Amino acid sequence: MSDSQAHLLTQLAACLGPHGLLTNPDQIGPYCQDWRRLFSGRAIAVLRPADTQALSDALKLCAAHVPPVNVVPQGGNTGLCGGATPDDRGLNVVVSLSRMKALGPVDRTDGTLLAEAGATLASAQDAAAHAGMVLPLSIASEGSAQLGGIVATNAGGSKALRYGSARDLVAGLEAVLVDGTRLDLLRSLRKDNTGYALRQLLVGSEGTLAIITRVRLKLRPALAVREVALCALPDDASVLRLFDIFRKRAGDVLEAFEYISGTAMEIALQYVEGLTFPLSERAPCYVLVELAGQDSSLRATLESALEEALEGEVAVDAVVAESSSQVAMLWRLREEQSESQRLAGASIKHDISVSVPAVPTLLDKATAACRALMPDVRIAPFGHVGDGNIHFNLVQPEGMGADVFLREGKTLTHAIHEIVHDLDGSFSAEHGVGQLKTDMMETWRGGAELALMRRIKAAFDPEGRLNPGKVLPVN
Amino acid sequence: MSDSQAHLLTQLAACLGPHGLLTNPDQIGPYCQDWRRLFSGRAIAVLRPADTQALSDALKLCAAHVPPVNVVPQGGNTGLCGGATPDDRGLNVVVSLSRMKALGPVDRTDGTLLAEAGATLASAQDAAAHAGMVLPLSIASEGSAQLGGIVATNAGGSKALRYGSARDLVAGLEAVLVDGTRLDLLRSLRKDNTGYALRQLLVGSEGTLAIITRVRLKLRPALAVREVALCALPDDASVLRLFDIFRKRAGDVLEAFEYISGTAMEIALQYVEGLTFPLSERAPCYVLVELAGQDSSLRATLESALEEALEGEVAVDAVVAESSSQVAMLWRLREEQSESQRLAGASIKHDISVSVPAVPTLLDKATAACRALMPDVRIAPFGHVGDGNIHFNLVQPEGMGADVFLREGKTLTHAIHEIVHDLDGSFSAEHGVGQLKTDMMETWRGGAELALMRRIKAAFDPEGRLNPGKVLPVN
Repeated sequence: MSDSQAHLLTQLAACLGPHGLLTNPDQIGPYCQDWRRLFSGRAIAVLRPADTQALSDALKLCAAHVPPVNVVPQGGNTGLCGGATPDDRGLNVVVSLSRMKALGPVDRTDGTLLAEAGATLASAQDAAAHAGMVLPLSIASEGSAQLGGIVATNAGGSKALRYGSARDLVAGLEAVLVDGTRLDLLRSLRKDNTGYALRQLLVGSEGTLAIITRVRLKLRPALAVREVALCALPDDASVLRLFDIFRKRAGDVLEAFEYISGTAMEIALQYVEGLTFPLSERAPCYVLVELAGQDSSLRATLESALEEALEGEVAVDAVVAESSSQVAMLWRLREEQSESQRLAGASIKHDISVSVPAVPTLLDKATAACRALMPDVRIAPFGHVGDGNIHFNLVQPEGMGADVFLREGKTLTHAIHEIVHDLDGSFSAEHGVGQLKTDMMETWRGGAELALMRRIKAAFDPEGRLNPGKVLPVN
Repeated sequence: MSDSQAHLLTQLAACLGPHGLLTNPDQIGPYCQDWRRLFSGRAIAVLRPADTQALSDALKLCAAHVPPVNVVPQGGNTGLCGGATPDDRGLNVVVSLSRMKALGPVDRTDGTLLAEAGATLASAQDAAAHAGMVLPLSIASEGSAQLGGIVATNAGGSKALRYGSARDLVAGLEAVLVDGTRLDLLRSLRKDNTGYALRQLLVGSEGTLAIITRVRLKLRPALAVREVALCALPDDASVLRLFDIFRKRAGDVLEAFEYISGTAMEIALQYVEGLTFPLSERAPCYVLVELAGQDSSLRATLESALEEALEGEVAVDAVVAESSSQVAMLWRLREEQSESQRLAGASIKHDISVSVPAVPTLLDKATAACRALMPDVRIAPFGHVGDGNIHFNLVQPEGMGADVFLREGKTLTHAIHEIVHDLDGSFSAEHGVGQLKTDMMETWRGGAELALMRRIKAAFDPEGRLNPGKVLPVN
């Protein structure tokens, strides 16, 4: 370590206080690897500020250092694309927000919760529930994922159909720029047309424009009534016809509309213990639908929609949950999808989206392409079909080794992405770009769009020191 | 006119085709003045492109010209802050989108409408209704206001409580940068985390970053049932208690929650013919509430909320509309506010917002301040209280001349804005900054926020030729 590095660490230690700076390699290690173990890098220290001021002061020290110090913000380190993992070049510090986890009181009249970036999503959900409200954002990693990362990656999840993704739920935020400047966008205004949408721009920028330190999240009143049904459909094309029926009859209270392919259902029933198939016969595909609201009329709404679907042969069968345990049982068929596919062998996941009308075409073409390339592959798509977001997952053929499957599967991934690209879709619906997918930005978002993103990056971070190598491909 | 200007106009005429270029001063005049007649400027021509390609080509010609040509985009010219009016310095061309008014077919499954920027909001509403859907955005000038301007100014209006402002309703857009580069962000994806939120950034940028040429707008299913009530309240503090009751009992179907002060109600009843007061006694203030949804249970929801309000003395009286003509009659009490104040004399308007919990404080303090400065002024606030957006309007005292009122009223405006600023509110909730309010940006949005906005402006428009003098104060 050079004298100047040692001096910087001394200054940072003084600025961040006890427990505020980690320099021991054993302690730093976990911050330098993503949880999928796809990426690892190096850092000279982990900064753990206790508040925004300490972070601001620490970043000013980093900004003044020669040679330049790169700064990599990290939340719960649950991201899927390596967006919070430092590289192994230059001088990196990781900024962990995990000590900043205060949850402000819920303001029920404002309908918001103020929280520090290091609070977990689950703790924020609990705080909302304690006040009789709901934070309508839910993802699999919510027990560890932190709000700063949730907002920085514009997390989606199963409730986005009704409530939108993280960007739609952020009423305000505070951030610190890489030079230490504090940016206060916390004001809670439902209408404010005074200049550019900095808040919306920072959401989803994956820590490359600023480090989010506090967020004000929109809450909703808790809903008293849930009605859940599983529908069996004759084919993928009927999924959209069923969606039309439900949007027309229950648009205001449609809480979830989740697709499960026939193969995905079979794998779940085969590999997960305790699941029971609630219909009399298997079908080509299924939709799990939930309505949620304040009054008992939901049941009649659900039943009238199902009646229209069955009469029109949009659905061939349907079952309505009659108790909360049946609600849970039906939802398990959807929620156990990832686990059942893990139990079934190696799998290749595709986080893709297209416009809602294009979903049947996507399913049809991608299935045909995969079938042609690898006839025995288990094609097990499921997901948030109401958002056009399909987890188009492929599971290892029963007679093929995992290594062979993962190697040969690259051609299937390529074929799937070509189909999505032709449909003007997205190669990353929910998970972001991170460092995993930067090489796709040129092809998918190149030209004027990528050029503007680069200029915006330079406007916030002219030296390119904040989370380098993420989102934007290296020139 | 210089030779180079004449040459440019010849080139532009060839590029834009018949009817594509106006150079006659009589024809140009209306484009050089805002409709409130607060601002006027000069332009050497009005460009009226027939499509995006023609606009792109024309802007490339302007970019190549020496000296620089400034470009001012204009929609229906209904803005309230002079955001679409050229200044009288340098070489300006106005770009009018009015020939680009095609409305694509409604995609009912996608729930979107593709439209060119020059289509009026009313024509887009009609196209949605024709397909059995609703474009849930409504403003007073919707018959003339064009979609490009609606999106560029992030228009709000009376339905924003439930559906959000324009930014929340834009699924995609196409724009042209000042150098003629086309930016295609039209893809209709409900989930897409591939880079920075350019679309959200362009919405509300008031034509200073790019010229919006096409938009894809989110539609909603048409709602079959409306229930409307007028509530009389004992004081302004009860407004929020009533809001709490309605959000709890009818959060999903709460379509409108509009405040009318006692004075505003009196002025409406006094000056507008044909209005009838539907309650037995006058009250300090009123709330007009509407629920809208798909089924007949709304009436019971409304009645149970009113019952709770009356029992808790949050409301002192209430009337529920029993027919569509009564619905219209109750809504007229709100909709005639602007007209009645115009009939009552000169008025000074304030387009302000605060967080919802701060509304009673705002009303209380601003009323006291105005009363102290001008005891006889008629303080007649009304507005979108559920959004924290109050039209805090002042009407000329009966014994004072309009000129004196408007002159002396400046001190009242200053006092009101000081109170809003102390409450961390906004001086422009809906109408934007334009050129009318740029001088307020330094005080209200200065420091890091304004500095970043300037750098973003430079990222999109390094020469500062696109709508100069708007949004950002001149250095």
